[in-house]
Amino acid sequence: MASREIEALANALARLPGLGPRSARRAVLHLMKKRENALQPLLAALQTVSEKLSTCSTCGNVDTSDPCSICADPRRDETMLCVVEEVSDLWALDRSRLFPGRYHVLGGRLSALEGVRPEDLTIDRLVARVSNGGTDEVVLAMNATLEGQTTAHYVAERLEKFPVRLSQLAHGLPVGGELDYLDEGTLAQALRARRPVA
Amino acid sequence: MASREIEALANALARLPGLGPRSARRAVLHLMKKRENALQPLLAALQTVSEKLSTCSTCGNVDTSDPCSICADPRRDETMLCVVEEVSDLWALDRSRLFPGRYHVLGGRLSALEGVRPEDLTIDRLVARVSNGGTDEVVLAMNATLEGQTTAHYVAERLEKFPVRLSQLAHGLPVGGELDYLDEGTLAQALRARRPVA
Repeated sequence: MASREIEALANALARLPGLGPRSARRAVLHLMKKRENALQPLLAALQTVSEKLSTCSTCGNVDTSDPCSICADPRRDETMLCVVEEVSDLWALDRSRLFPGRYHVLGGRLSALEGVRPEDLTIDRLVARVSNGGTDEVVLAMNATLEGQTTAHYVAERLEKFPVRLSQLAHGLPVGGELDYLDEGTLAQALRARRPVA
Repeated sequence: MASREIEALANALARLPGLGPRSARRAVLHLMKKRENALQPLLAALQTVSEKLSTCSTCGNVDTSDPCSICADPRRDETMLCVVEEVSDLWALDRSRLFPGRYHVLGGRLSALEGVRPEDLTIDRLVARVSNGGTDEVVLAMNATLEGQTTAHYVAERLEKFPVRLSQLAHGLPVGGELDYLDEGTLAQALRARRPVA
């Protein structure tokens, strides 16, 4: 249909999550039609990110600077640390703008099945961060999956000996959740963690 | 959340058709995680296309060479010419691999409402191509819209005086179309153009 170069671009775009072969072709056409307003800005943005991309040596976030923009932000509460599995979890939490502290990205979750052991994650680095002092509270924000909770349990054990408060995200009904559609596990958690009506 | 550079990349991706702000962020994370396998190939492909992108001076297709890969292909039947409104129409038709000839992209459709006049399209260039001889058939493949059909009518009038066969795409039921769900216009066209059962 089109030249090899255009096919290559369509293929590269089609590998992005959320774009299939058909929408990738539409995107290519869009880019070629709007050369100044779409192709050039995307190219420039990709180039900048590609040049500057780095993993924060403190928290494990990916950003265009090291330390990352969160670790470098003086308005962030240094005494609070939120531990997450992946960078995508950090982004999701930070979009809510509700956590004023800093983060620690483990880089995955413990999994016997996938052969992920504690030394494959950045747990040692987390322990070192906490042992340096200055941290009052560590929020364990792993996924509410078996592996996420196993990881949280393991991290909690490793941090027990330090004078920090350990907490974890509440489990229960999601906003808008209808009892009829929720699984028994969620309902059990919500019932067990029920709170007195104020 | 992330640095200005990453936000810029997310914004550039979010402007692609088929990607919203949420999926653009997912795409950015994917690109940053798979630096070698996703970010670099996409960057290289965009760069190549950006450098080589050109509009075919013969048919109006966008490609990485001029003449475009279709006009330059000696296996294409030079005696057949298919006239389309936009480059995306050319691509859609050519994906079907059913048309063995070459194309002519008008660059739009006549529209009193949007102020698009014949001189805003490449109709003069089409007439010149046909008047040069060598063309046996011109297929008018405009959209089955009021403006598309007006454009087809106008182009047909301009080509009347040349010794070429003029044809247009058949109108009728789309494959998989259920009568119950089709509009009256389509049904009327299908009925009017009914063919004897062989």
